[in-house]
Amino acid sequence: MRMVDLIMKKRDGRALSEEEIQFFIEGYTKGEIPDYQASAMAMAIYFQDMTDQERADLTMAMVHSGDTIDLSAIEGVKVDKHSTGGVGDTTTLVLAPLVASVGVPVAKMSGRGLGHTGGTIDKLESVAGFHVEISNDEFVKLVNRDKVAVIGQSGNLTPADKKLYALRDVTGTVDSISLIASSIMSKKIAAGADAIVLDVKTGAGAFMKTQEEAKELAHAMVKIGNRVGRQTMAVISDMSQPLGYAVGNALEVKEAIDTLKGHGPADLTELVLTLGSQMVVLGGKAASLTEARENLQEVIANGQALEKFRQFLKNQGGDPSVVDRPEKLPEAPFKIQLPAKKNGVVSEIIANEIGVAAMLLGAGRASKEDKIDLSVGLVLHKKVGDKVMQGDSLLTIHSSSEDVEEVMAKLYQSITISDNAEKPTLIYDSVTE
Amino acid sequence: MRMVDLIMKKRDGRALSEEEIQFFIEGYTKGEIPDYQASAMAMAIYFQDMTDQERADLTMAMVHSGDTIDLSAIEGVKVDKHSTGGVGDTTTLVLAPLVASVGVPVAKMSGRGLGHTGGTIDKLESVAGFHVEISNDEFVKLVNRDKVAVIGQSGNLTPADKKLYALRDVTGTVDSISLIASSIMSKKIAAGADAIVLDVKTGAGAFMKTQEEAKELAHAMVKIGNRVGRQTMAVISDMSQPLGYAVGNALEVKEAIDTLKGHGPADLTELVLTLGSQMVVLGGKAASLTEARENLQEVIANGQALEKFRQFLKNQGGDPSVVDRPEKLPEAPFKIQLPAKKNGVVSEIIANEIGVAAMLLGAGRASKEDKIDLSVGLVLHKKVGDKVMQGDSLLTIHSSSEDVEEVMAKLYQSITISDNAEKPTLIYDSVTE
Repeated sequence: MRMVDLIMKKRDGRALSEEEIQFFIEGYTKGEIPDYQASAMAMAIYFQDMTDQERADLTMAMVHSGDTIDLSAIEGVKVDKHSTGGVGDTTTLVLAPLVASVGVPVAKMSGRGLGHTGGTIDKLESVAGFHVEISNDEFVKLVNRDKVAVIGQSGNLTPADKKLYALRDVTGTVDSISLIASSIMSKKIAAGADAIVLDVKTGAGAFMKTQEEAKELAHAMVKIGNRVGRQTMAVISDMSQPLGYAVGNALEVKEAIDTLKGHGPADLTELVLTLGSQMVVLGGKAASLTEARENLQEVIANGQALEKFRQFLKNQGGDPSVVDRPEKLPEAPFKIQLPAKKNGVVSEIIANEIGVAAMLLGAGRASKEDKIDLSVGLVLHKKVGDKVMQGDSLLTIHSSSEDVEEVMAKLYQSITISDNAEKPTLIYDSVTE
Repeated sequence: MRMVDLIMKKRDGRALSEEEIQFFIEGYTKGEIPDYQASAMAMAIYFQDMTDQERADLTMAMVHSGDTIDLSAIEGVKVDKHSTGGVGDTTTLVLAPLVASVGVPVAKMSGRGLGHTGGTIDKLESVAGFHVEISNDEFVKLVNRDKVAVIGQSGNLTPADKKLYALRDVTGTVDSISLIASSIMSKKIAAGADAIVLDVKTGAGAFMKTQEEAKELAHAMVKIGNRVGRQTMAVISDMSQPLGYAVGNALEVKEAIDTLKGHGPADLTELVLTLGSQMVVLGGKAASLTEARENLQEVIANGQALEKFRQFLKNQGGDPSVVDRPEKLPEAPFKIQLPAKKNGVVSEIIANEIGVAAMLLGAGRASKEDKIDLSVGLVLHKKVGDKVMQGDSLLTIHSSSEDVEEVMAKLYQSITISDNAEKPTLIYDSVTE
């Protein structure tokens, strides 16, 4: 088999066989197939796309390019959730204790954040003492006993995907549904998921700018999952503005606690219930999405979800009292308001720009080595569709310094006030098959 | 400027500016742009193609990537001819003295052959004493005085094209009209041509398998030439069978002499007159193609073309008496006939397979280091459309060994005898603007 023949086959619009895709991915991982052939192949895939079967084969070839996590020692269906980017996305923090409290095992392997999207571990570390440096045995024991634990990423998962992603980034081949879908799915499967729930974000702050693209990506991933024996569902949700109000590590933990108490932001609560219902159904703990949602609403109302969060924090060294006294979380010394410059209705809050502003405050890392400030960030007071009067605070800047001129300028550029605007739809679609 | 942005621009179907194309080609030549970006760009060009202006800009960027030959010391319009591959193509050997004898300067820079297509220098070296190791001054002096000389290739011409071609060969991006056309044109322009005549071959033995592709390539090159101030014309000619009868170095020199004497093969003679007429018009030595053809026919009839060939050989150390006594050319010890296996009409002689058979006899190089045997080759007796009876000789194998079993088997596979077949058209089209 010669790589150049496979490139020409794809270039001419023909489907590659499982064996051919394995040859490409194995050879590329080992360095036997050079970058210049892989990039030509990626561009040919960009133009000619892949069939559902090719996408499934590519996904599994990437899964087998490195280590895979074996979660078979954990009882039950391990359902993993993945969001395609997003800003101020507190869903994981809420979902983990929430679905665990109805019996779905949450064996979460997580990483740190890079750029303007925060990592779940960073957020949790704003709870004093919390750590993810636990042994595999401890991890398995905790999930079996209490249904929820988080461990830091280890092992060399999907090296083919890492290598191919870096190459795509510099060769104009990122925007291929086939390549995006197989990249995301390979990482989840390699991390041991039996079933997968996907939150595909769309809008100005998201990777998929239009609903059509988001829908196409969601269908692609659900089809891959179902072909390779991992039941998959997806939600297409709005990211034309940040989710909830908080953007920043401790600020998001506080918002997660509010939500588990039943008085979180409406959009965050609704998305968590929608994604959580899919997780509960895939985890075999409810027969229908409606039944699952009722169960989740019940554990919020009766305090079991909050109690699960306390247990989870305590199990991993964290101070569970923050749940009742959120003021114990790191707090920034300066709280500066951003006043509206005119009367009107908020018509745009560009989510990724808001994320970048939070990063400038120190909430996110520009490079892997950066230390982050867990206390800083932003709390929105107005969202798209809300009326404002000149001088009303649009948001509060939580900062370690009084000098926030640059951040304020950026925020004013990212928020538009018009004569009128509609509240955006939160959930555009659910894809269950 | 970032290469990844240029790749995405082309990927999205937008035209690159002259500056952007220069950035790509200069950066790639210097190694500042890596192969993996160049191959992604080549694949994007394959799918999105280039405008006429982009093709012209790409051509000139490749011309300026290395040395260029300055022929300004030679008087008159320097017209160069290029054939896109082909087998048993003796046109250059005939055209050089022919057009020189009507006053068009032929300042030919030539290379050695590789693979099954013979090089002009190899062919000429079958004349005892002939050599191309002459100084630049001597070369200029000879062309100014006698209108024809051949010199070996020197200098680092179009390094960008060499590098890009090698990359395209292994990344499935050879078959792009834009990339083929600019590659050919850049080489001719860097070698100092003021005007260019192109012989675009089509058919089983050629790079362009269909007339449509050949026509597209011809138009692309003519447009490039005219845009960059090098008047260009093209002929689309048949290569569904070898041109003329001879395939092999000394054998083709003998055939060229026959043609200059006015009794060469009909197809070779016709193609030479067609290409030669374009060269004479572009060289400013006739007002119309008709007038040019009449002049060329005249110098064949009155012996001036043949005399020019004698002079040319003598000027570069060759024995001019071979023109009158072709038996002085190297001769293979064995001449073996290939008898027809049945009655019928020759319907196919796959030109590139015939070329490979000649290479197996030793007439061509499989790798650069191979020594070639100038005496060996093939002489066809039947061409497509000719009737044959069982036992008639289809061709004579000129060999250094009696053992030609493998070659005969290959030849039988390449020649088909059917119930009936038409003689193919030789010249499909002329493209003059």
